[in-house]
Amino acid sequence: MKKPQGTQRYFIEVIYQGIAHCGWQKQPNQNTIQDILEKTFQQIGYPTSVTGSSRTDAGVHACKQVAHLDLPHGTDIKKLQRSVNALLPSSIAVHVFKKVKPRAHARFDAIKREYEYRIASMRHPFLYQRCYFYNHKIDIRRINKIAQSLLGEQDFSSLCKAKSDVAHHTCHVTTSHWKASESFISFFIASNRFLHNMVRTAVGTMLALEKDGKGAKELQIILKKKDRAFAGPTLPPEGLFLLRVDYPPTIFQELT
Amino acid sequence: MKKPQGTQRYFIEVIYQGIAHCGWQKQPNQNTIQDILEKTFQQIGYPTSVTGSSRTDAGVHACKQVAHLDLPHGTDIKKLQRSVNALLPSSIAVHVFKKVKPRAHARFDAIKREYEYRIASMRHPFLYQRCYFYNHKIDIRRINKIAQSLLGEQDFSSLCKAKSDVAHHTCHVTTSHWKASESFISFFIASNRFLHNMVRTAVGTMLALEKDGKGAKELQIILKKKDRAFAGPTLPPEGLFLLRVDYPPTIFQELT
Repeated sequence: MKKPQGTQRYFIEVIYQGIAHCGWQKQPNQNTIQDILEKTFQQIGYPTSVTGSSRTDAGVHACKQVAHLDLPHGTDIKKLQRSVNALLPSSIAVHVFKKVKPRAHARFDAIKREYEYRIASMRHPFLYQRCYFYNHKIDIRRINKIAQSLLGEQDFSSLCKAKSDVAHHTCHVTTSHWKASESFISFFIASNRFLHNMVRTAVGTMLALEKDGKGAKELQIILKKKDRAFAGPTLPPEGLFLLRVDYPPTIFQELT
Repeated sequence: MKKPQGTQRYFIEVIYQGIAHCGWQKQPNQNTIQDILEKTFQQIGYPTSVTGSSRTDAGVHACKQVAHLDLPHGTDIKKLQRSVNALLPSSIAVHVFKKVKPRAHARFDAIKREYEYRIASMRHPFLYQRCYFYNHKIDIRRINKIAQSLLGEQDFSSLCKAKSDVAHHTCHVTTSHWKASESFISFFIASNRFLHNMVRTAVGTMLALEKDGKGAKELQIILKKKDRAFAGPTLPPEGLFLLRVDYPPTIFQELT
């Protein structure tokens, strides 16, 4: 039988413990998620580039990063997935393969990304390296009011790492709220796009405002300055999780 | 001012990642939780024995182990707790100190213990070393029926490690059910007492029965044999969590 021609594009869902890695994006001689995935696919005979939706920083975790790659038509996906997961380090796993249209792009076609930032007030063995430990009480009601100021389409230059190389700083934030669970409290934020360090700086700024007794209005003022110098500290990466990435349903070849 | 006389007994709640340790119980030259706690209290000037409710095996985790210890009257507990947690390895933390009556005993006064055993069908970076990976589909409805056979006051010799040195093998199991969550499924069991390896052998036996198409009746037969040889395998410790320990409310000096 003749070997099938051409390739099929897939979206994969990747889960990773960020603390063990130098971030998503490929770098010379670095232990990045993208490097490890590409090397693993190559090792089992499927050389392909793996393009992620979001270039998470070193230390940032993902519950569901999405990436696209091309595989030969007729590839046994279940077998491939088992092989890939058997070879990957315990800090990375690939859970889902979905067929998408040939030009579907994990980064450019994403319409929404959602992140969570976790904060615990006390050291906790199960949250070690998966949470930011912050030694002050947080008034959830007050910080939730401050978080409202992030909603809507706005310029987020004040919360973006200085000298970031992007065309513009406008993001449309559709979710911005805090929620307490048993051992930690979380900030959830969803947006069409995110700037470099935006979530970690947003959380650092809200904590500083909350601690100083300031409110939603002060965060609005900081955003209007369009200057990083007016915002609070950028918190460490280990509290940050990429939760999900959404795409238009028409991008998928099978709606599973 | 004269130094206050005597000691006050406390219950502490201890959380630990079991995989890094050789179990709870003190052993010569071993890295056990009890050893580490006693050494830490001693190191900051509070020599005391620390007696746990349950002697969890090497690799078993605890979300809330309870232990008792004695501290001098007038000890600044908040300060002591900060010092203890600062010195403990990241795999152990002490979260709660509660004043109890002078003769309260964490092990002998416990009226109920609850455990969870977690099973995932796919490798998952956030469940690594905190879950048992099992590569077969589990029919939750069927295995929940099997689990019913563990309920009630019965002899559990069949699920107990052979040659365990206990006075009797009767336990009163009050909770025994399975529940699916997003990335794993859990078995929950509560009882007045547990025998050595009882939960891990109960889960191994239920999985074997479920896989072979057997039901609740077969588990009843296994229990009636009162012989470990008839039960299934003892699963590894990393899926097991001590969830909580209950005491009669009259044991506490302050109901917090």
